[in-house]
Amino acid sequence: MNYGVVIRVLGNLLLFKAIALIPPLTLALYDRSSDRMAFIYSIILVLIVGLPMARFPKKNNKIKSKEALTIVTLGWILVSIFGSLPFVLSGSIPSFIDAFFETVSGLTTTGATIIDDIEILPRGILFWRSFTHWLGGMGILVLTLAIFPTIGVGGFQIFKAESPGPISDKIVPRVKDTAAILYTAYLGITILQTVLLCFGGMSLYESLVHTFGTVGTGGFSTKNASIGAFDSSYITYVISIFMIASGVNFALYYELYKGRWRKIILNSEFKLYITIIIVSVFLITLNMYGNIYTSISETFKHSLFQVASIITTTGYSTANFDVWGNFSKGILFFLMFVGGSAGSTAGSIKVIRLLIMFKLIKRESQKLLHPKAYIPITINNKIIAPDIVASVISFFFLYLLVFALGTIVISLEDIGLVSSMSAVAATLGNIGPGFDFVGPTHTYSQFSGASKLFLSLLMLFGRLELFTMIVLFMPSFWKD
Amino acid sequence: MNYGVVIRVLGNLLLFKAIALIPPLTLALYDRSSDRMAFIYSIILVLIVGLPMARFPKKNNKIKSKEALTIVTLGWILVSIFGSLPFVLSGSIPSFIDAFFETVSGLTTTGATIIDDIEILPRGILFWRSFTHWLGGMGILVLTLAIFPTIGVGGFQIFKAESPGPISDKIVPRVKDTAAILYTAYLGITILQTVLLCFGGMSLYESLVHTFGTVGTGGFSTKNASIGAFDSSYITYVISIFMIASGVNFALYYELYKGRWRKIILNSEFKLYITIIIVSVFLITLNMYGNIYTSISETFKHSLFQVASIITTTGYSTANFDVWGNFSKGILFFLMFVGGSAGSTAGSIKVIRLLIMFKLIKRESQKLLHPKAYIPITINNKIIAPDIVASVISFFFLYLLVFALGTIVISLEDIGLVSSMSAVAATLGNIGPGFDFVGPTHTYSQFSGASKLFLSLLMLFGRLELFTMIVLFMPSFWKD
Repeated sequence: MNYGVVIRVLGNLLLFKAIALIPPLTLALYDRSSDRMAFIYSIILVLIVGLPMARFPKKNNKIKSKEALTIVTLGWILVSIFGSLPFVLSGSIPSFIDAFFETVSGLTTTGATIIDDIEILPRGILFWRSFTHWLGGMGILVLTLAIFPTIGVGGFQIFKAESPGPISDKIVPRVKDTAAILYTAYLGITILQTVLLCFGGMSLYESLVHTFGTVGTGGFSTKNASIGAFDSSYITYVISIFMIASGVNFALYYELYKGRWRKIILNSEFKLYITIIIVSVFLITLNMYGNIYTSISETFKHSLFQVASIITTTGYSTANFDVWGNFSKGILFFLMFVGGSAGSTAGSIKVIRLLIMFKLIKRESQKLLHPKAYIPITINNKIIAPDIVASVISFFFLYLLVFALGTIVISLEDIGLVSSMSAVAATLGNIGPGFDFVGPTHTYSQFSGASKLFLSLLMLFGRLELFTMIVLFMPSFWKD
Repeated sequence: MNYGVVIRVLGNLLLFKAIALIPPLTLALYDRSSDRMAFIYSIILVLIVGLPMARFPKKNNKIKSKEALTIVTLGWILVSIFGSLPFVLSGSIPSFIDAFFETVSGLTTTGATIIDDIEILPRGILFWRSFTHWLGGMGILVLTLAIFPTIGVGGFQIFKAESPGPISDKIVPRVKDTAAILYTAYLGITILQTVLLCFGGMSLYESLVHTFGTVGTGGFSTKNASIGAFDSSYITYVISIFMIASGVNFALYYELYKGRWRKIILNSEFKLYITIIIVSVFLITLNMYGNIYTSISETFKHSLFQVASIITTTGYSTANFDVWGNFSKGILFFLMFVGGSAGSTAGSIKVIRLLIMFKLIKRESQKLLHPKAYIPITINNKIIAPDIVASVISFFFLYLLVFALGTIVISLEDIGLVSSMSAVAATLGNIGPGFDFVGPTHTYSQFSGASKLFLSLLMLFGRLELFTMIVLFMPSFWKD
């Protein structure tokens, strides 16, 4: 392991974090609110640790798989620890464990909260809380589209041949080029949504906070009642559309920019993603019409919003879907395991993996009839190598294994099976709210400290595509 | 398709069924109970349909994959339809849908019941009800160890090289040899358990009924309170041990007979199966001791029984585990997805598939560190071919897909998520009871007729390893 370069990169990450604290600090200074000193102290603390790390002596610049995996995992944990400083120092979240949970939830774009009353907190703190979604979303785009394919995490090698930008075998130039394209798309979508929300009557501050929560598929709001508090069809539809847009593979925005419409429309993952949304919205509208909502347009609006929110793992709500019919709740529950497209800011299992597994089922059925036929798995008319198929599949199994074991552990809280299962699904899948005890009108504040730490770990685990963290627990990882 | 031979085999299956109705008829005649005429009429009806079918003209004797798949699926459905005759004709279960549900539940060794008061039914009917478990268990052993490997259903090709008896490429002699060994083991275990239960104070009739339910991993009892009604530690332990024994790959009993102890002890699936049982019993005992049960031996007894009952998909109960702590219930819930070993009478996903997926995860983690290494998947020191790994995996995904879609469908009953999920898991996995609405003190009688038919389909689907039935829905299956 090249420790020198690992420490230097982590140090630079902290310096970047210090810069990220400037916007909320500016807002706090403008508001002359009590939290401004918390941001100043946080920046100073981050610099004290970050500066020496960024200047750590190194032998060379070589970053291989081992170094990349260590940087990704430790980086996420380090930024979460230092990111919770403003919450603790301002007294907004006095307990460090609670603040850590909230920051991990923000950076992993989960949106699960331990704050029972959000509306009493100062604007600087709430801005920072949602800004972590935006930063985390950007981070995960770079990871899944540029870094993971190169080091082979979670079956993302699919992107190797397809991801935008000039192809290069070395990690650094490739990451830089891909990242530049992604930043542009991410920034463009952010500006567009902010402007549209301002048109809907939101203040610039509210627009920004909710845009961060949407494009990062996070879900933190400034209101206890989430998007429902705004009671505006316009805002509901704008956020629905941008949630769905944020659950699309960002590489497709490069195709959009190049004017290659056909490539988008014919993309298999995109087609399945949109199909699942349409079918789910249709079924829930059918189930809920005349049940809770009297007008068909109201029913459609809320079901579109909630389906978009859950499948993209955002977690915003316009209604308490925990009181919806069991059929609708059943659909939402299983959508928690779908997630958006790979290469988006969404979490959970992701549509491309389901697609590959559908194809596998189809092939197995055909093989029963034609045992000697050679039937390769293809996505977008390209053959997917068997080892990538195996990688995709082992992710699926590992995900469900962690879900099952996680649920059993959280069951020690004695909150009922639905609550345990949905709390684990909502954190591991980076969604936020679940059902029952962790439903949209509840928070995670009632969990014990140990459970909060455990759920934080699940959020990181899910966000980093499981294997990234698992490998670090293998003894052979630490041998040279 | 060679229709002639398909109809002939199905006809012979019905004749075999007529013979199987003789033991319950004998009991009914001995009891001079009201159900004796029902058995006589049933036998006549079965013969009227079966005899002409068994003599249907055929071109040749060729049975290929297509014919085998059709015979397996239609055979199971046909026997279920005719098997429900005694229930309907005797008036014990007046509704045909209910009787069909009960018979499918029996033959698939599920053990889910729609009878609210079992104890008022005549002995002949109850004997037949449990005898279907024993017949179904024998049927599934032959299928998974002799027929499925040959036609390639559900990844059972693993047995191709390993299953006992002389190896032959033609289906018929191979099936005959393997089946003979299996029958011997099955019959031996049945006799042993019956004798042991008689020693425990059960009548011969009760011993037989509960032995059928155990070795078939079915779960039908003669008592409303299941095994709990006997209130005997001896009986509880005997049934626990025989449930565990019935969840072992029956090919291992051939090794036992040959005295190859090492082959059993070193068998990877056997080791994992026993490990899961030990760990689950340990954790539940720890969780329940001092909670519901005051003595450690009581706690251990009930937790061993319930773990054995759920993992082997039997479904007997000695206690209402639905009121146990959430941690214990969480473990039991996920054990519903484990199932016993492949090549046993148990249903659900089965330990060998989990084992292969654990190995896949291990390999993926190693590959992250050594991207160019060739790491094959091995079981019992033998390399498993990639296409078998793919087959195993697609089964796992299909199983969970059917579980998810099935739960959404059953959610239309508006019985809550835990009830819907466990009803589907308990029928698809051939277990029987689940939690909440379908907990051990409830029955499936409250479901609508449509739901009962749907759940019957799930039982068949699970029992026939999914793909067997899926293939029949493919248009290309019916083309020549």
